[in-house]
Amino acid sequence: MAEPVHFYFDFISPFGFFASLRIDDIAAKHGRTAEWHSMLLGVSVMKVMGYPPLMETPLKGDYIARDAERYARLHDIPIPRPLPVPTISPIQPGRAFNWLRTRDKDLAKAVAKDMLWAFWIDQKNISEPEVIADIAEPHGVERGSFIEGMQSEEAKTLFKQAVDESLENKVFGSPFFIVDGEPFFGTEKLELLDLWLERGGW
Amino acid sequence: MAEPVHFYFDFISPFGFFASLRIDDIAAKHGRTAEWHSMLLGVSVMKVMGYPPLMETPLKGDYIARDAERYARLHDIPIPRPLPVPTISPIQPGRAFNWLRTRDKDLAKAVAKDMLWAFWIDQKNISEPEVIADIAEPHGVERGSFIEGMQSEEAKTLFKQAVDESLENKVFGSPFFIVDGEPFFGTEKLELLDLWLERGGW
Repeated sequence: MAEPVHFYFDFISPFGFFASLRIDDIAAKHGRTAEWHSMLLGVSVMKVMGYPPLMETPLKGDYIARDAERYARLHDIPIPRPLPVPTISPIQPGRAFNWLRTRDKDLAKAVAKDMLWAFWIDQKNISEPEVIADIAEPHGVERGSFIEGMQSEEAKTLFKQAVDESLENKVFGSPFFIVDGEPFFGTEKLELLDLWLERGGW
Repeated sequence: MAEPVHFYFDFISPFGFFASLRIDDIAAKHGRTAEWHSMLLGVSVMKVMGYPPLMETPLKGDYIARDAERYARLHDIPIPRPLPVPTISPIQPGRAFNWLRTRDKDLAKAVAKDMLWAFWIDQKNISEPEVIADIAEPHGVERGSFIEGMQSEEAKTLFKQAVDESLENKVFGSPFFIVDGEPFFGTEKLELLDLWLERGGW
């Protein structure tokens, strides 16, 4: 079995959301699976790298929103325009995802996909445990234990470990991909990643 | 006559160099010309945006070098490996380019191309006026007046105006492209820019 394509994302990253819509298909095209992992822009980019918050960065902030809207138009992603600026914390969804992930990776991925869609397209507040439970319920996730689990010490520890692991792997943005040890940053790299998988590198 | 494709670069940006090798052909394919402009990463990115120097940035620095080498391998660009870390100042080449540019835009572009190649491939020190004059001489640029001109108050003012103009146009990286008012940042955007020109936007 070939190594999975590792996909790192932050729930509050629009480009992470965009990549989430394509990464499984790209991996499958080359007989791979995509393994989804958490990262936190607030830790890697702001704390470790010392960057200011992206959307508040002079010159770049406006561009990023424009670039995201342009990408969404090109790929027919029905994101609200202007692009919503995330005001929620990605901590609770990250804990919920990682709590579920230790139990069932595929289930966690399916729920994460729906959480991303609910947040970016339907503008649901996915920092609320009840909202997350609503999203997971159709996947057969039992509501009570999930709400308790996602707020447990275990969930905190699991999420923290996931973010630490992202830093150990030098993940510094969302989306970020690692294929057989080769790192790729940004939605724009999906075509290159596709080519890399096709050729087995160069 | 269609508007030119505006191409902004910093001489010490490897990705700016990579884009310089393709932008004229992409523009020509769509009946456009590329107009080359100066920007300075040290002003836009570090002073205005408050970012730390890229190659010294934790997590990202190593990635950038790796990404540049991967790009060079894919596009058969014979850049030295490991990627040279620029230690020269881009001020003198920027002044030389802008001094020449007010006299003859096409000539300035041809000389800039050769300066970029000399710096990135042949590892010439293009912060030296004599080295710049050596590069320009085969293009028919008279040595004495060019060496004097590139160090004149006029050259300083012209370069400063160019950098100010880049900031007014919200150029925050190298390479950066503006097509009919639409901004594109990064070498990775060349394919998207190509598509944008083909479709006339979307």
